[in-house]
Amino acid sequence: AFGAAFDNPDLIVSVVVGDGEAETGPMATSWHSNKFLNPVRDGAVLPILHLNGYKIANPTILARISAEELDSLFRGYGWTPYSVEGDNPHLMHKQMAQTVEHCIQDIHSIQRKARSDGSPERPRWPMIILRTPKGWTGPKEVGGHKVEGFWRAHQVPVPEVQTNPEHARIVEQWMRSYKPEELFDENGIPRPELKEIAPRNELRMSANPHANGGRLRQPLAMPDFRDYAIRVEKPGAQEVSPTEILAHFLRDVMRRNMNNFRVFSPDENASNKLEAIYAASKKTWLASFKPEDSDGGEIARDGRVMEMLSEHTLEGWFEGYVLTGRHGFFSSYEAFVHIIDSMFNQHAKWLEKSKLELGWRAPIPSINLLITSVVWRQDHNGFSHQDPGFLDLVTNKSANVTRIYLPPDANCLLSVVDHCFRSVDYVNVIVADKQPHLTYLDMKAAITHCTKGIGIWEWASNDDGGEPDVVMTSAGDIATMECLGAVALLRECFSDLKIRFVNVVDLFRLQPGSEHPHGLSDRDFDTLFTKNKPVIFNFHGYPTLIHKLAYRRANHENLHVHGYREKGNINTPLELAIRNQVDRFSLAIDVIDRVPRLGTRGAHEKERLKNQIVESINYAYAEGIDSPEIREWKWPS
Amino acid sequence: AFGAAFDNPDLIVSVVVGDGEAETGPMATSWHSNKFLNPVRDGAVLPILHLNGYKIANPTILARISAEELDSLFRGYGWTPYSVEGDNPHLMHKQMAQTVEHCIQDIHSIQRKARSDGSPERPRWPMIILRTPKGWTGPKEVGGHKVEGFWRAHQVPVPEVQTNPEHARIVEQWMRSYKPEELFDENGIPRPELKEIAPRNELRMSANPHANGGRLRQPLAMPDFRDYAIRVEKPGAQEVSPTEILAHFLRDVMRRNMNNFRVFSPDENASNKLEAIYAASKKTWLASFKPEDSDGGEIARDGRVMEMLSEHTLEGWFEGYVLTGRHGFFSSYEAFVHIIDSMFNQHAKWLEKSKLELGWRAPIPSINLLITSVVWRQDHNGFSHQDPGFLDLVTNKSANVTRIYLPPDANCLLSVVDHCFRSVDYVNVIVADKQPHLTYLDMKAAITHCTKGIGIWEWASNDDGGEPDVVMTSAGDIATMECLGAVALLRECFSDLKIRFVNVVDLFRLQPGSEHPHGLSDRDFDTLFTKNKPVIFNFHGYPTLIHKLAYRRANHENLHVHGYREKGNINTPLELAIRNQVDRFSLAIDVIDRVPRLGTRGAHEKERLKNQIVESINYAYAEGIDSPEIREWKWPS
Repeated sequence: AFGAAFDNPDLIVSVVVGDGEAETGPMATSWHSNKFLNPVRDGAVLPILHLNGYKIANPTILARISAEELDSLFRGYGWTPYSVEGDNPHLMHKQMAQTVEHCIQDIHSIQRKARSDGSPERPRWPMIILRTPKGWTGPKEVGGHKVEGFWRAHQVPVPEVQTNPEHARIVEQWMRSYKPEELFDENGIPRPELKEIAPRNELRMSANPHANGGRLRQPLAMPDFRDYAIRVEKPGAQEVSPTEILAHFLRDVMRRNMNNFRVFSPDENASNKLEAIYAASKKTWLASFKPEDSDGGEIARDGRVMEMLSEHTLEGWFEGYVLTGRHGFFSSYEAFVHIIDSMFNQHAKWLEKSKLELGWRAPIPSINLLITSVVWRQDHNGFSHQDPGFLDLVTNKSANVTRIYLPPDANCLLSVVDHCFRSVDYVNVIVADKQPHLTYLDMKAAITHCTKGIGIWEWASNDDGGEPDVVMTSAGDIATMECLGAVALLRECFSDLKIRFVNVVDLFRLQPGSEHPHGLSDRDFDTLFTKNKPVIFNFHGYPTLIHKLAYRRANHENLHVHGYREKGNINTPLELAIRNQVDRFSLAIDVIDRVPRLGTRGAHEKERLKNQIVESINYAYAEGIDSPEIREWKWPS
Repeated sequence: AFGAAFDNPDLIVSVVVGDGEAETGPMATSWHSNKFLNPVRDGAVLPILHLNGYKIANPTILARISAEELDSLFRGYGWTPYSVEGDNPHLMHKQMAQTVEHCIQDIHSIQRKARSDGSPERPRWPMIILRTPKGWTGPKEVGGHKVEGFWRAHQVPVPEVQTNPEHARIVEQWMRSYKPEELFDENGIPRPELKEIAPRNELRMSANPHANGGRLRQPLAMPDFRDYAIRVEKPGAQEVSPTEILAHFLRDVMRRNMNNFRVFSPDENASNKLEAIYAASKKTWLASFKPEDSDGGEIARDGRVMEMLSEHTLEGWFEGYVLTGRHGFFSSYEAFVHIIDSMFNQHAKWLEKSKLELGWRAPIPSINLLITSVVWRQDHNGFSHQDPGFLDLVTNKSANVTRIYLPPDANCLLSVVDHCFRSVDYVNVIVADKQPHLTYLDMKAAITHCTKGIGIWEWASNDDGGEPDVVMTSAGDIATMECLGAVALLRECFSDLKIRFVNVVDLFRLQPGSEHPHGLSDRDFDTLFTKNKPVIFNFHGYPTLIHKLAYRRANHENLHVHGYREKGNINTPLELAIRNQVDRFSLAIDVIDRVPRLGTRGAHEKERLKNQIVESINYAYAEGIDSPEIREWKWPS
């Protein structure tokens, strides 16, 4: 509801909240959204908490606390509650109409004041607490058991109507109580005076353009993402934080779209190195201010960056915002994006139906989700922050609406995000870390690479014009660096070893075309990965995900995936990589093991690699950081 | 915290809640847990909401609303808030001690009253709102920027200490402000009078037995699960609801363990057909009662069944309960168990560390999670309720703590649950539907089958003494029925077709032994599944999960998995099965396609199967239910 109201100053979004769903966590904190609604710029939300008293088979909590407690709760949440209560439909309709009218006038007067004097103090918005019987106007009792006003009214208030004549009679009586003969003519058509009541055109709920938000969608006014490119003179020579680079682009997207673009994050934009966006717009904040906020607080009543420590609320806002035709960007720590798994699942399901089965629904902007602060850089936070499994979930949802990108460096990230911002009807999941990482591709190469989604990096390969002995493959920024590290080690020791280096940005390229529209043809796949050579694949996430995507490919038997194996602690980056065997040494050893002709010849080198593993772990243990050779490693050119 | 307090009448669980985490959804609804705490039987929870005012880089909501609003919020949640506020450590320590003392006296007087007059009305428990500066007693300013009492105090209040001498000086000054010379002797050892203050033995926080709950664990007093068995005279001849059968067993487990066993569910025990447990104990309810509650409400102040419409709260209670050494059982609709993905992830991570790395931690009872109301029976709820993907997540976590069971019928479910209740240090995930399903195994056979975890069903196979032409495999109740349906169809048409029927209960049997302790040896796997015959696998969940587990197996290339392909709507069971090709007809067609010698001979039969698919869909569309032959299908014997 709030997502719909943001940047729609003339819209009042009324939302009915069941007292069952009001017990859920996401709902319980979302009442605080009133601290993020600006009465000058945004519309209003008029919640109607509907206490019908029961869930499937239980009373509800909010219906079984005292009226004083309930009133106190919603005043504490910052609302002004109005109560409507009763069971006489005629009186209740009147009372409800009056209360809604009153609330709308309240809303208008709040908005008028804020918009005239320009000081958008946080108002106490009105809300309605509506208390009516569950199964209202339905059968009072069935078989001697209370139904109306009790949980039995849930779903099927009168069971076994086909076999129990007494129950059939109850249903008939119930239906007749609405006096259909007064409502319909002899052909079963509603009488004209009834039809007259129905709203027309855009006042019909389903025809309200906000309810089919794609109709209101305006493409983002986009700066040229190439203007934010990092100069890359040679690959793997310098480090930048990809998200820090992205932040400048986001800032300028924000500047050009100050009415239909928002950035969402659970108190993490700064941590995720995206704080450059605050130059375009601060964080929305309508609770109280302190003098010190002006020194680095980056909060403002008219801010457009949405931060609250609830992934649920942010995802809800974001979904409401795109569903009403506007654009956004959500960044989250990788491990904690699982908090919104269920919301992602439901949005993906909705989107697929909307896109494939409901022709009248106009395409809506995509959900763009940046997953950062990734598993491989948790030197401070440790095991609890290591979980790259969200991607596994994404691959379970319809191929028509899911996209996953793992840009290996800053320029690729820019190219990917630009692409995502122009897309509609997808959930775009982008994985890119916030720490400084090597850059590999200049912008021209990045665009070509990201457009293909998968490709050979010639500068890291030496098999051109011949058959490779091994295909080294990576997906993900840190996985790519370690994989290149292994290539460098191998080329130093085995000058005749022919290595092909493949990088994957668009993860669904790995799936067959029959399973995902982005899937490579078997011909393309077989050419890239060969049909019989070992493929050593260094993956950002859980290694089995790659097998899940590629198990139908011809060379699957020779595909050996390294990835996160759920081994971790507060480790240095190399230590953590070693524990999960995604480090350069382990990868190089795997190559020695897999390329038959290196067999005995590789024994000495393998020994040296094993020594380096032991030494690296001991160094990390003793010093608490990795050795300078590791920390400052560059691609040898 | 509440999970720890349940059934520990003498325990006061004090829990410090940060004002950042207080913004999350799960936390926001968990304050309502006070409606589920019985002052006679349970201990107390004393929450301390610590408002230090800031998160990583933002003010917190609760610290920036008025004191009146905040007070009103917590009174609305049903607490009596006490405020402690200030920044003078000496005064604050005193004030805090007094307030804690006062709260404990409040708690004791509430408990005394309830325990003497026996009427456990819901009390207004005390809580403390503690307001102190963030980074309290740390540096006031660094580089001219406010630190103490501002978000900059988060994590690293003074950056670059190694390179900036001014910053190093600030840290030194800060450390010296605590007067170490008064606290430690010249060897750096705390002075005796300081040591004297520290609590001893079990009063030390880490030595409190509740903090190492395994030490308090008592095995459940278990009825004999065989006494609840369904008589199965021939396989696939009668239907029962597996969960309905289970409910009687659960009821008697509850009866024998009225102090250390609880059943958790989000308003779904009745829907999940577990309501027989209410005969042993009703649902805990301490909010208000109405007269009609006595007719089927099944709520009571001293109930032990925990229901609230928040999967988060339930999982939190359950974790607290097992962490303090007690036992439980949680049932959830399959699609919505994703709501607690993140909580499952973190518990599994904690459990692995506790089990493998912390020898002093005693084993705790397992989390037992029944996933029901499954994807394949959503004739009313439709697509939103179809998501078997939680298993994918579970397989990403450590093999040391994860178990997945898919009992194919009621007796198997009993056997599996009995096994899980006796286990420690696992998350046991059990998938079993609530609707009536065919029974296949008598109890003796069920025990043997579940103990093996995977096995041939001889009565459904006809390859004994020879090589099979095809191995038909199933995992999951509905998947098993359809797979047997396919076998029946095939045996009717191709009398010489040799079919082996394998059923999988323990999903991790499919993984190699090197990956999971339950993994079958390659020799066992190869004997069961052959090395070269087609395996048609009908799986309950997303089909790729089976490939993820089995991709290393010799016969993986011939493994053809059917499962949920994210295609659904409000469909009849057969219609939904057909859309995802897990129905008997599609499976039989797949066999005809995969067994070479059926090639041309099978054409007519394949045609007839295709006709049946079309007819079934048309019937379902026209009638809204499946045909009687489908609804009443039995295994032909």
